[in-house]
Amino acid sequence: MPQIKKKPIKDNPIKDSHGTPDPIPAAIRKQLIKIVTEKRYLDKKEELACYAYDAFLVEAMPQAVIFPETAEDISEILKIASRHKIPVTGRGAGTSICGAPIPIHNGIVICFSKMDKIIEVNTRDRYIIVQPGVINAAVQKALAPFGFFYPPDPGSMSTSTIGGNIAQNAGGPRCLKYGVTMDYVLGMEAVLATGEIVTFGSKNVKDVTGYKLSSLFCGSEGTLGLVTRAILKVVPQPETARTLMVTFKNLDDTAKAVSDIIGSGILPTAMELMDKFTLNAIEDSFGLGLDRKAEGSLLIEIDGVKEACEREMVKIIKKLKENNAVHIQESANDADRERLWTARRSAYGVFAKMAPDIISEDVTVPVSQVPEMIRRIKQIAKNQGLRVGVLAHAGDGNMHPMIPADKSNKDEWARVEKAFDEIFAAAAALGGTLSGEHGIGLAKARYLPLVMNQDSIHLMTRIKQAIDPDNILNPGKFV
Amino acid sequence: MPQIKKKPIKDNPIKDSHGTPDPIPAAIRKQLIKIVTEKRYLDKKEELACYAYDAFLVEAMPQAVIFPETAEDISEILKIASRHKIPVTGRGAGTSICGAPIPIHNGIVICFSKMDKIIEVNTRDRYIIVQPGVINAAVQKALAPFGFFYPPDPGSMSTSTIGGNIAQNAGGPRCLKYGVTMDYVLGMEAVLATGEIVTFGSKNVKDVTGYKLSSLFCGSEGTLGLVTRAILKVVPQPETARTLMVTFKNLDDTAKAVSDIIGSGILPTAMELMDKFTLNAIEDSFGLGLDRKAEGSLLIEIDGVKEACEREMVKIIKKLKENNAVHIQESANDADRERLWTARRSAYGVFAKMAPDIISEDVTVPVSQVPEMIRRIKQIAKNQGLRVGVLAHAGDGNMHPMIPADKSNKDEWARVEKAFDEIFAAAAALGGTLSGEHGIGLAKARYLPLVMNQDSIHLMTRIKQAIDPDNILNPGKFV
Repeated sequence: MPQIKKKPIKDNPIKDSHGTPDPIPAAIRKQLIKIVTEKRYLDKKEELACYAYDAFLVEAMPQAVIFPETAEDISEILKIASRHKIPVTGRGAGTSICGAPIPIHNGIVICFSKMDKIIEVNTRDRYIIVQPGVINAAVQKALAPFGFFYPPDPGSMSTSTIGGNIAQNAGGPRCLKYGVTMDYVLGMEAVLATGEIVTFGSKNVKDVTGYKLSSLFCGSEGTLGLVTRAILKVVPQPETARTLMVTFKNLDDTAKAVSDIIGSGILPTAMELMDKFTLNAIEDSFGLGLDRKAEGSLLIEIDGVKEACEREMVKIIKKLKENNAVHIQESANDADRERLWTARRSAYGVFAKMAPDIISEDVTVPVSQVPEMIRRIKQIAKNQGLRVGVLAHAGDGNMHPMIPADKSNKDEWARVEKAFDEIFAAAAALGGTLSGEHGIGLAKARYLPLVMNQDSIHLMTRIKQAIDPDNILNPGKFV
Repeated sequence: MPQIKKKPIKDNPIKDSHGTPDPIPAAIRKQLIKIVTEKRYLDKKEELACYAYDAFLVEAMPQAVIFPETAEDISEILKIASRHKIPVTGRGAGTSICGAPIPIHNGIVICFSKMDKIIEVNTRDRYIIVQPGVINAAVQKALAPFGFFYPPDPGSMSTSTIGGNIAQNAGGPRCLKYGVTMDYVLGMEAVLATGEIVTFGSKNVKDVTGYKLSSLFCGSEGTLGLVTRAILKVVPQPETARTLMVTFKNLDDTAKAVSDIIGSGILPTAMELMDKFTLNAIEDSFGLGLDRKAEGSLLIEIDGVKEACEREMVKIIKKLKENNAVHIQESANDADRERLWTARRSAYGVFAKMAPDIISEDVTVPVSQVPEMIRRIKQIAKNQGLRVGVLAHAGDGNMHPMIPADKSNKDEWARVEKAFDEIFAAAAALGGTLSGEHGIGLAKARYLPLVMNQDSIHLMTRIKQAIDPDNILNPGKFV
């Protein structure tokens, strides 16, 4: 949705094009195919089209898509790309909603789908080692028999890859209690733009050996290197979980209940807020029997030892009542719980049905500012004559205002852009930030000055230049 | 203890000297004093001597010590230092045990003792904002009335500063459950070598806006910038804590008990292992009535909701008995608990009394390798005819082998060096790493190739050069 201000790629010999780009020159193509064989190299137009988009609104065709199988393959590919200044963009499952894997300068897309092996599961030492193409849900599946899990749970977890999760530093509902992707990346292997294979971190939970480069690479959106292996911290499954669905007469009470529960020292696994618009959209699709008149609702989950959950539940219900909760309903069993979560996780899909386009944003504010931020989002949308649904990981102030609209309607689209300009400014003004878990990508680079001064932004550029001097790795994004 | 391989400072006009260095040239001195006034500028030899050491074994005199009060002061100082290529080393309380704040290329020491304000306590939004000179214990004290705490608890917490904790990415016993400093730094303000004041992160628990520069700066030992303000995440105090002191006939059982408890999915707050040598040293000083014949002992603490602790305690005791624990004693009350912890936290001081010098190291191995690593440490010390005490945050495999020795005894010192060479090699061979919480500093730069390849080490240098092109910030350390 936001205007894309492209950065020129230094000495890029390849014509930048929004239509079908020129193919990779034959001599270079031959070298690349030699590394991965013909069947792992796509460059027919109809094949390329599948790798031109993610869940954001911009499309750009790559010149070739390559499916490497090893870090060494990638190293060889990057050496060639580096020599010829060909842009290289990594791609997991393409579920990003900020345009991060879109090859807006064309070039090569490296797709990790053939690097999808789980290398080691070691619950005794609390780690799992995986290749980047492993799906988040596959990690969960591999750990479950041992009674362990990997906490980060983005909405896309059934399809998104660990490599993509790392690139975007993905979050999810239960990150309220457990933290985001970066908190679970103990170490990694990555390939730099010029082909060097580097490793950072280790299998050790505590490791302060040199700069924390694995943390720097988390959320760097493929601009610093391509991750080829990750060592992830895993944790024991809690003994039990309990889930509440709560509705409120107004949104202020809903948000204040969240802020009160957190403020009282309880840290639920998740506290998912939905406004009336979102609740009704979900009800339309799932028929859960939710109260369609409720202006606000919360899906609250706690987990841990049985007795502790018991006690916390009492305290939470007290806070909910103090904030005028109308219905408080606990899930009777796992199937019931699962049904609620499936509905919640489907919110994005439900919205996507409402209009040709859907913009799901990701502002974050300190939790005490959630009520005020919701008020401002509603007002801003109203002023622009737009519908807006608010869905939030409210416990950590991470809010997803979702606006269904039609990009081909120029007037409407201008109002959508205006609304988001104002929403980001409002978040910044409340001490918030541009993204809690989706990343910056193409969507929000232009808003960075709202939350960082020029010297801070320039510092990111200096680091990028030091690691990728020719700017071939995912060029044209936030750095 | 390890040989220090100095890196030359590019175009450094100041003579490198191990004795008393030349003073800062008069004209530059005058400019510096103009920024901070005369009383915040030290350069008499007897004054400088107090800033020439930390708790490591190397000393080097600065040419001046400056006590700034604001980020702007530091920006002005760094602009001058940058112009004249004068090394600048930050200093908190000087408790580092890896030589991190030693100005081995002389120059200016910036001491943060006048930047010791707590700026904001906000437990509703779960953060505290502090200046870098604030003592860790002062943060705890400020949070206690609100029922919150700041988890990182280095042994030095009663004297070490938050700035120093961030520079070294400090850990501590309860980091087993709660994580290390980096996990609690939400955002910061820092001054770069050339004087730019930058900010990273925010007050928001979830924030994926651009590169995670606050994580890169954590543990960077003052080589990338000087932190002038930190936003720290805080957490609610647990309802209760329970503490066990356990002794074992042999060290293998001790270590296996740790590994079994962790492997069973319980994550205690802390699991502190002490061998016989350490236990007796502590008993000599504190007379706690500990069993002097025990080859191994564990100080185990759990915290949380009362009922949950109850249940975990039963499981832990079962695992201890399975591993042939001899005495299992629970602290009867808070005073008793405090006494045990005071003794444990004093271990370093106790060892320091045994010989003119003490080397406390900080290797980390995956927790399942703790028994084997202890065996190797003991054997290595024995082969070199040295005494060794092993103290470990055993739950995360973070071990402190401590060797009392006399640096002036050349033969003995050579054997100490040999022993540590072998200990680091053994840790690396077991999948471990060089430091869990002390940092690299001067002590371990030469061991980096044991755990990182040359390209990975070179990558750190590239980042350092991009941010501090003249290498004026804490030069001569690990990067």
